[in-house]
Amino acid sequence: MRIIGLDPGLQRTGWGVIEAVGSRLVPIANGVVTSNAADELSVRLRHIFEGVQAVLATHAPDAAAVEETFVNKNPTSTLKLGQVRGVVLLAPALAGLSVAEYTPNHIKKSVVGAGHADKGQIHHMVKVLLPTVQVNGADAADALAVAICHAHHAASDRALARGLMLAGARR
Amino acid sequence: MRIIGLDPGLQRTGWGVIEAVGSRLVPIANGVVTSNAADELSVRLRHIFEGVQAVLATHAPDAAAVEETFVNKNPTSTLKLGQVRGVVLLAPALAGLSVAEYTPNHIKKSVVGAGHADKGQIHHMVKVLLPTVQVNGADAADALAVAICHAHHAASDRALARGLMLAGARR
Repeated sequence: MRIIGLDPGLQRTGWGVIEAVGSRLVPIANGVVTSNAADELSVRLRHIFEGVQAVLATHAPDAAAVEETFVNKNPTSTLKLGQVRGVVLLAPALAGLSVAEYTPNHIKKSVVGAGHADKGQIHHMVKVLLPTVQVNGADAADALAVAICHAHHAASDRALARGLMLAGARR
Repeated sequence: MRIIGLDPGLQRTGWGVIEAVGSRLVPIANGVVTSNAADELSVRLRHIFEGVQAVLATHAPDAAAVEETFVNKNPTSTLKLGQVRGVVLLAPALAGLSVAEYTPNHIKKSVVGAGHADKGQIHHMVKVLLPTVQVNGADAADALAVAICHAHHAASDRALARGLMLAGARR
């Protein structure tokens, strides 16, 4: 299964594609889609959307995952982030992919093993879990962490389904 | 000039298309794009986006206008609205249209003549300014108000440009 993780941001949207081969995770590609602060909002959203669409077309993932946004106390920032998040969720949905969402704590627990891990620990573990990876910046590392979280989640779902089937067969 | 006004909402996104013929405004069509609360977020965003794209394809406006969102104190609602606003701004941007944004007060002043007008006054004035209109609900009326505001704005921009040209010719 090939998974894309996405970390939405109006300035910089991180993306990371990995492949789950059995229990092994293989890095495919990662990077950042940017927009120009001098452009009007709708144009910036278009550039982010088209950038994510291009990544989907090139790397053809089977599933997508996005971090659930932490809503902060600044409503203007929350609105801005919501707008870019909307177009980042839309791109894989238009490609027919299911888009999973994970809370920041869920991602930290899945990647580092602790919900209170800091960014440095997450980026370190991304490199441990994907030994051959070349990470293109912090936003791409965050996106890879979301993809890893989804791979772990999908693997435990499969194990659960297998367990239930075995339990059914034994009855 | 044909203008589409848009009033983004995850449940119901209102839209209204009008044509400015000289100083006269002609209603073309209006309605609402809905999404199903039972679907996952990315699917709902996709349905809103595709609905707006279909309206743009059918009515081929030359310009788009959206109400600037009033950020309220509930960050979860603000984030939700931001997400749908992102895909609603994206659709006309992908069609190559410029997307203007107006504050709620600006729209009220432009349509009713007072920044403190209530919804009832706005909907009344939409019908006065577009005498032959059949309005398909409150969200469509709000969208028509945004379109009217943009028509007034574009007309005063043209008058200003004409005035400057005349002033230049007189010198």
